[in-house]
Amino acid sequence: MREGYDIKLGEFKEYLKKLEYLNNSVAVLYWDMRVGIPKKAIPYRGEMLGYLSGEAYKLQTSDTMKEFIDYFSGIEELDDVTKSMVESARKNYEQTKKIPEDKYKEYTILASNGEAAWEEAKEKSDFEIFKPYLEKLVAFNKEFIGYWGFKENKYDTLLDFYEPGITVKELDKVFGELRDAIVTLLNKIKNSDVKPNVEPFKKNFSKEDQEAFSKHVLNIMGYDFEAGRLDESTHPFTINFGNKDVRITTHYYDNDFRSALFSCIHEGGHAIYEQNIPDELIGTMLGTGVSMGIHESQSRFYENIIGRSIEFWKYFYPEVQKRFSQFEGIPLTEFYRGINVVEPSLIRTEADELTYSLHIIIRYEIEKALINGEIKVEDLPHIWNEKYKEYLGVEPGNDAEGVLQDMHWSDGSFGYFPSYALGNLYGAQFLNKMVKDMPDLYKDIENGNLNNIREWLKENIHKHGSVYKPAKLIKDVTGEELNAKYFIAYLNDKYSKIYNL
Amino acid sequence: MREGYDIKLGEFKEYLKKLEYLNNSVAVLYWDMRVGIPKKAIPYRGEMLGYLSGEAYKLQTSDTMKEFIDYFSGIEELDDVTKSMVESARKNYEQTKKIPEDKYKEYTILASNGEAAWEEAKEKSDFEIFKPYLEKLVAFNKEFIGYWGFKENKYDTLLDFYEPGITVKELDKVFGELRDAIVTLLNKIKNSDVKPNVEPFKKNFSKEDQEAFSKHVLNIMGYDFEAGRLDESTHPFTINFGNKDVRITTHYYDNDFRSALFSCIHEGGHAIYEQNIPDELIGTMLGTGVSMGIHESQSRFYENIIGRSIEFWKYFYPEVQKRFSQFEGIPLTEFYRGINVVEPSLIRTEADELTYSLHIIIRYEIEKALINGEIKVEDLPHIWNEKYKEYLGVEPGNDAEGVLQDMHWSDGSFGYFPSYALGNLYGAQFLNKMVKDMPDLYKDIENGNLNNIREWLKENIHKHGSVYKPAKLIKDVTGEELNAKYFIAYLNDKYSKIYNL
Repeated sequence: MREGYDIKLGEFKEYLKKLEYLNNSVAVLYWDMRVGIPKKAIPYRGEMLGYLSGEAYKLQTSDTMKEFIDYFSGIEELDDVTKSMVESARKNYEQTKKIPEDKYKEYTILASNGEAAWEEAKEKSDFEIFKPYLEKLVAFNKEFIGYWGFKENKYDTLLDFYEPGITVKELDKVFGELRDAIVTLLNKIKNSDVKPNVEPFKKNFSKEDQEAFSKHVLNIMGYDFEAGRLDESTHPFTINFGNKDVRITTHYYDNDFRSALFSCIHEGGHAIYEQNIPDELIGTMLGTGVSMGIHESQSRFYENIIGRSIEFWKYFYPEVQKRFSQFEGIPLTEFYRGINVVEPSLIRTEADELTYSLHIIIRYEIEKALINGEIKVEDLPHIWNEKYKEYLGVEPGNDAEGVLQDMHWSDGSFGYFPSYALGNLYGAQFLNKMVKDMPDLYKDIENGNLNNIREWLKENIHKHGSVYKPAKLIKDVTGEELNAKYFIAYLNDKYSKIYNL
Repeated sequence: MREGYDIKLGEFKEYLKKLEYLNNSVAVLYWDMRVGIPKKAIPYRGEMLGYLSGEAYKLQTSDTMKEFIDYFSGIEELDDVTKSMVESARKNYEQTKKIPEDKYKEYTILASNGEAAWEEAKEKSDFEIFKPYLEKLVAFNKEFIGYWGFKENKYDTLLDFYEPGITVKELDKVFGELRDAIVTLLNKIKNSDVKPNVEPFKKNFSKEDQEAFSKHVLNIMGYDFEAGRLDESTHPFTINFGNKDVRITTHYYDNDFRSALFSCIHEGGHAIYEQNIPDELIGTMLGTGVSMGIHESQSRFYENIIGRSIEFWKYFYPEVQKRFSQFEGIPLTEFYRGINVVEPSLIRTEADELTYSLHIIIRYEIEKALINGEIKVEDLPHIWNEKYKEYLGVEPGNDAEGVLQDMHWSDGSFGYFPSYALGNLYGAQFLNKMVKDMPDLYKDIENGNLNNIREWLKENIHKHGSVYKPAKLIKDVTGEELNAKYFIAYLNDKYSKIYNL
């Protein structure tokens, strides 16, 4: 029995390794398409990607895969890694296998057309163009939930793809508390006399100088350039092919000092997570970050909690002043306020640390209601604008800067958005524990020593890859379940000081 | 019958398309490894490449492939494209299938170890380290020829992999004539009073300036940057993923103006060939250059016949002088002589246009004798040095700059070298016809109009992809079989003028 098991496990691992080679090949082709591809090559690259993804899909849904899943499901007392491998394989298998094949094909085409329709709609700022596609995408997702099944709330099933185990019940609680706290804080800030000066950041900064400084910061953070590289692309992203090739991109604006810098710190957080995955997990499908939410907790932790802290800039600001004459005569406190300015705005991707979560909560509330049939697609522009007015006090002038701004719904990625805000909550919970474990944390940051932070994250989070679900991870690390109180306390404390509340 | 045929052909094409997707994916991963990969990622990338190549190999040697080959082999009167598709598929199939599987595996491992041994041997300049591997590689190739069969000369079978249809009989004739002609010309040049001045080329040139000028030249040549890109790598190369993504690389030396420039023109010649392949051939396995020799004819044509002509520099030299103050006061004739200096040397890759072919002929003579059992591996260093002394008048001081300089034998690529010299012969034959078709050819070049040349090459050569074998192609285009007289005449004419002979 033991011998048979070992052989089977070896075969299973070999099989998953192949699947990972394929997925990573897809990722290389994709990276190249975003970073370096010549214009005319895009259609053929699409064909290549389609073929390789199709092959990966075949491996994921093959009879062989089914046999592995069935075999290991019949065995009790699997070790954590094997158990998680089987569960992840099963999830991938069932995600498509439970859907009738013709339905799934129809949906794939719809999702692809939906993207094109969304693009046109956004360009023309006309929701009507996108509406019929969105209606069908929502209908399909509701139908699929019928095949997949659900326990308490239909939307839970979709959430589970991005944040395994999270539920509407939990999110309603933490997002509700967070929303109320932010709205209250935001109103106080609006009445504050403090008006941060952001003009210095809008002067002219050369790409080369920005790149050099971003690399300097990434080095100190502990991003390993021998296992990664920094490139330019339209939108910043992190992508990895195993743990030894974790690449990040950014986009430089010559009239904006903050954009590329903080996107590099953000993507650097994602990348350090992937670089710290242990070699043993590579090839098991568990050798990557466990969920979107935990991933965002790492990127936002570095970007906001560390990267927008006063201690961080006590160390880096002298270097900024040395490299950029644009900040001559600007004291550190003014710089610090400038990178933490709160400005309720219409566009999620341009939002500040405080208001960002509100953008997400609005999308969460809408998605949840859509999937549960409580609102209709045709009412979205109106509902969207109402919520922006209520929570953020701003109102979109048109669909493009309102309901059409994000591409996520265009290919049916419902359930994805909440991860962004979850990242903030997880991050603050981790911070609370980290400070207890390392009382000198902020002194370290002030001295430009970010190694202890990286090690703590590695030991507590990164080294587990995808072995444990987010809920177990957060409990194991912090001793508490997911909650909003630490992030709310962090926000209140930080912004009260900045805005003299 | 016709309907059954059409369905089968459609299936065959679908099958080949998949194989091409895989091969092109391998190529993207390979390009990235040479141009952009982080250091620590190399081993895993090797695994990914191994997996994808293995999948491509499976498709090439599958029973399905065998069925296609058998089916179409039974049909007379196939159109040229289909016939060529079947032939190329059969060749790939038989190349490995005729070898017993365990032999082939053994050989693959040997080839891989051979590379490592060669690297060490070259580093230590000690042929003894590489000798046992080379002996086995030669023995395997001789054994394989037994499985593959041969008609007149055993070495023909190896040649056929790189230059389909070429034979020892033909090569002995053309290479013999070429060797004698070059040696005679070389001796005259040695006695000439003309001593080109190469000092200006060795001043300091910034990478940025070199790159900008190379791009300028490539643009005028007609290399399409919307279907390609120029990058840096240790050794220059061209690689393509279809006809819309044809990438070239170069290597910049700050103390050498000629190296990057002429390597760009050379690789540009390869790349224009691939960019000009018609869309209809993509996905058929015929949508690429037909042979190594024809490919080299394109690159060498651009690099030497065009790129080192006086007319080319009548157009470009003013631009050089504008961009590079290093050439201040240097007249065009001096520049022209400098880029055409003849210097017999030890290293093939650094050879000038005239002596380059001698380096190749030496390798050809050695390979031919090795495969036919006329010489032994252990005698190679001695034979090598003797031939260099005889043909080029130079003698290697050690194995590294002698018999160990090229990596080609380390993985068993016997039969590859001749293509380099064949390219010179083909190119001059094409030139002869081109001048007849376009009497204003050199006037065009002088005016910086290189479009007619590109169009002529496209119409006569590029548009056929791999449909016709080299021998048919050269006959169809020039009306003559492969011969050495045009290249010899070209060399005599050119160097007599330069060296006042």
